[in-house]
Amino acid sequence: MGTDDLELYLDENKKRQLNELMDWLSIPSISTLPERKDDMIRAAGWLADHLKYVGLNNAEVIETGGHPLVWADWLDAGDARPTVLIYGHYDVQPVDPLDKWETPPFTPTVRNGKRGEDLYARGACDDKGQVFVLVKALEAMLFVRKNLPVNIKMIIEGEEEIGSPAMSAFVEKNAERLAADICLISDTAILAPDKPSIDYGLRGIWLGELAVKGPAVDLHSGAFGGAVHNPNQALAELIATLHDASGRVAVNGFYDDVRVLSDAERERLAGLPPNEAELAKQSGAPAVWGEPGYSIAERIGARPTLEINGMWGGYTGQGFKTVIPSEARAKISCRLVPDQDPKRIGELLRAHFEKVVPSTVSVELQTFGELEATLIDPEIREMQAAIHAYEKGFGEKPLFNLCGGGIPIVSKFQKALKAPVVLMGFGLPDDNAHAPNERIHLPNFFRGIRTAVYFLEEIGG
Amino acid sequence: MGTDDLELYLDENKKRQLNELMDWLSIPSISTLPERKDDMIRAAGWLADHLKYVGLNNAEVIETGGHPLVWADWLDAGDARPTVLIYGHYDVQPVDPLDKWETPPFTPTVRNGKRGEDLYARGACDDKGQVFVLVKALEAMLFVRKNLPVNIKMIIEGEEEIGSPAMSAFVEKNAERLAADICLISDTAILAPDKPSIDYGLRGIWLGELAVKGPAVDLHSGAFGGAVHNPNQALAELIATLHDASGRVAVNGFYDDVRVLSDAERERLAGLPPNEAELAKQSGAPAVWGEPGYSIAERIGARPTLEINGMWGGYTGQGFKTVIPSEARAKISCRLVPDQDPKRIGELLRAHFEKVVPSTVSVELQTFGELEATLIDPEIREMQAAIHAYEKGFGEKPLFNLCGGGIPIVSKFQKALKAPVVLMGFGLPDDNAHAPNERIHLPNFFRGIRTAVYFLEEIGG
Repeated sequence: MGTDDLELYLDENKKRQLNELMDWLSIPSISTLPERKDDMIRAAGWLADHLKYVGLNNAEVIETGGHPLVWADWLDAGDARPTVLIYGHYDVQPVDPLDKWETPPFTPTVRNGKRGEDLYARGACDDKGQVFVLVKALEAMLFVRKNLPVNIKMIIEGEEEIGSPAMSAFVEKNAERLAADICLISDTAILAPDKPSIDYGLRGIWLGELAVKGPAVDLHSGAFGGAVHNPNQALAELIATLHDASGRVAVNGFYDDVRVLSDAERERLAGLPPNEAELAKQSGAPAVWGEPGYSIAERIGARPTLEINGMWGGYTGQGFKTVIPSEARAKISCRLVPDQDPKRIGELLRAHFEKVVPSTVSVELQTFGELEATLIDPEIREMQAAIHAYEKGFGEKPLFNLCGGGIPIVSKFQKALKAPVVLMGFGLPDDNAHAPNERIHLPNFFRGIRTAVYFLEEIGG
Repeated sequence: MGTDDLELYLDENKKRQLNELMDWLSIPSISTLPERKDDMIRAAGWLADHLKYVGLNNAEVIETGGHPLVWADWLDAGDARPTVLIYGHYDVQPVDPLDKWETPPFTPTVRNGKRGEDLYARGACDDKGQVFVLVKALEAMLFVRKNLPVNIKMIIEGEEEIGSPAMSAFVEKNAERLAADICLISDTAILAPDKPSIDYGLRGIWLGELAVKGPAVDLHSGAFGGAVHNPNQALAELIATLHDASGRVAVNGFYDDVRVLSDAERERLAGLPPNEAELAKQSGAPAVWGEPGYSIAERIGARPTLEINGMWGGYTGQGFKTVIPSEARAKISCRLVPDQDPKRIGELLRAHFEKVVPSTVSVELQTFGELEATLIDPEIREMQAAIHAYEKGFGEKPLFNLCGGGIPIVSKFQKALKAPVVLMGFGLPDDNAHAPNERIHLPNFFRGIRTAVYFLEEIGG
């Protein structure tokens, strides 16, 4: 059977494939919330059963100290054919603020909006929906041809959104089991529905939490206001020292190790969307912002950042409470680029806070996670195969881009497995990953399945 | 029957009086929380029944558009005797952070600690406990002597902690019913258990909320971080502009109308506790803070402040979420002194934010409440009677102090009723009003009852 039978199969099975994805998306697999532990187990079990159903072998839920991994393989292509390790994750981000969702995050809903048909649900894009693209590509080939052009190992984890601790340990101890010629990951975005792109870099990250401590207990602002440094105010004052007025990070040494881009690379990135107006529109922010002297693509992909992802202190409920809180806190993350060392960034931050903290409060800085940035050489054969696959699948040659996000396991894969990683993303910049109303664009979902088939065919070549 | 019988009565009834207070304190009358509406009604009804029980007449729960008022009177002292209007409040502050309470806030508990026997409960000091001091003084005289030395009108409201809207309207429409020769309020603190004091001023307040708005929705910090101004960061940067490095409020015009203290007044305030070391100990803060050139008593009582009572934005739950929030918010209050106009302060704040806000975010400032500061002349006869009462009740001449907090209705009373207000407080600076583990010092509670008796006796002449 040839490609035509496969196209026919894919056309005829769209609705069923979508319903299956919606079924999986309805399981609230939020890895960071302890109360979702059972849902994580359900989501893993659902996937293992499904991988068996599509024709993969040895489907298995692997217990870990944290959330389980899901494994399946198909190794009947023979030793002459390469082995592709497919990685993805079934865990999703928390859903708050819940009141901003138009339909409930775990009630997957198809809606026809400005950009066409989208499927809305937490995880629709990041990453259950994209894992499903690859699974449905394998399904189509296995159902129609009873065969795959490559050997497949598939490992889908449940802790990507919390730094991949169990998966990292598994990679270190199971290099042989995971051994592959190439790693394929669908967990990124293309530039626009008709503008495919391939990310050749991922930013790293340092994650932590800052506590500013003042009075021993919450105080009445009538009784103490004016004579005690309010920790909310002190935290704000400390945060305000982290950037200069231009938008550059003002932590001493922060940019020291940043890889300097070549002129050619800068020129290539300068041509990429979004431009400033497009980014303002995509984000809905009144204006763009950021480090002067760099384009939007550079700010997002090639330059490090420092973000306050969460900040809280004192009374935040309805009405008013005239309190001076005993402490205030901020969740801080730094997106990092090659060749920054996350450990050193944490140390620089600690040194910064110790230098600027006034004697009227004390600070505590906790590290939650560390991850190095990644670069992939666009010239290798596997990246060229990806270019051809997108050209066939989307009718347009893909551009090379730098991804502003990170995938914790990628640098581990590069080090432990010594195999090239190819990031074939099918999300979009406005898919609202990590935000309310997450969605996947259905035309991309279905084109993605075909693109994955073309890629595996060329790799199996 | 004379004072001795009254002393005997008070000694013999301590336990019962305490149990009654504990019963009232167990009703969670938090006025700012809509879900506590029924508890507010219960707390008001409990008090009206109790005022009837102690021998007051015409006890009544008065419906309002908000939480009800409680009224009772005793007008049998005759026209020759003055009429004393007693005011207080039965509403209490919210209780979060709940995990910082050693015993549940609405399970009143007596514990013997470093400073002696205290009764712990939300409202123990502010203000149910202090209302009870006055009620028990009336009870003792009515039970033992079947008589009071003055006419009494009593009005206890349920919205003091939310700005007294219904009570304000009631005062304006019922000046005749409330007409009195003197207003007596127990809702403040003395300097120390053996160091009584009388507050001759209360700070006013401006309350509001600042919203900083950026992206239309929460964004993924990987996809947008570095190119969009994070509203948490922007809010922190805006808050950091509100004070200069020395601790002075940096809002243009903020100090313009502040009443200048006389040298004599400054000298008197300079002698008052707490000193810097004592305040650091009371508050548990690493060091004191505040406007340079002013003593602790001045900073708290005679100088205006600007506090961030609450601040929040982004992900504040367990774990981590790499989000750029669409908005961040702060609850702001300014404690004001004579002759600052709360309306003008709100306008100055608005002008400040409009001046400093960058084009990358927008701001919205909402006003929640406005209250002018109050001053009471320490030389009037009624204040002198209070001095004598404390001398008898505590064995120590009271000092004059300025209260850093405010009582919304006081300036209304001064304007509408034209009667002097006397603030006879029985709380302590470390009673944790508005904070976890609120308490009242039991020796003060019982001495307070006697002090109130002595005061009413002298006023009654």
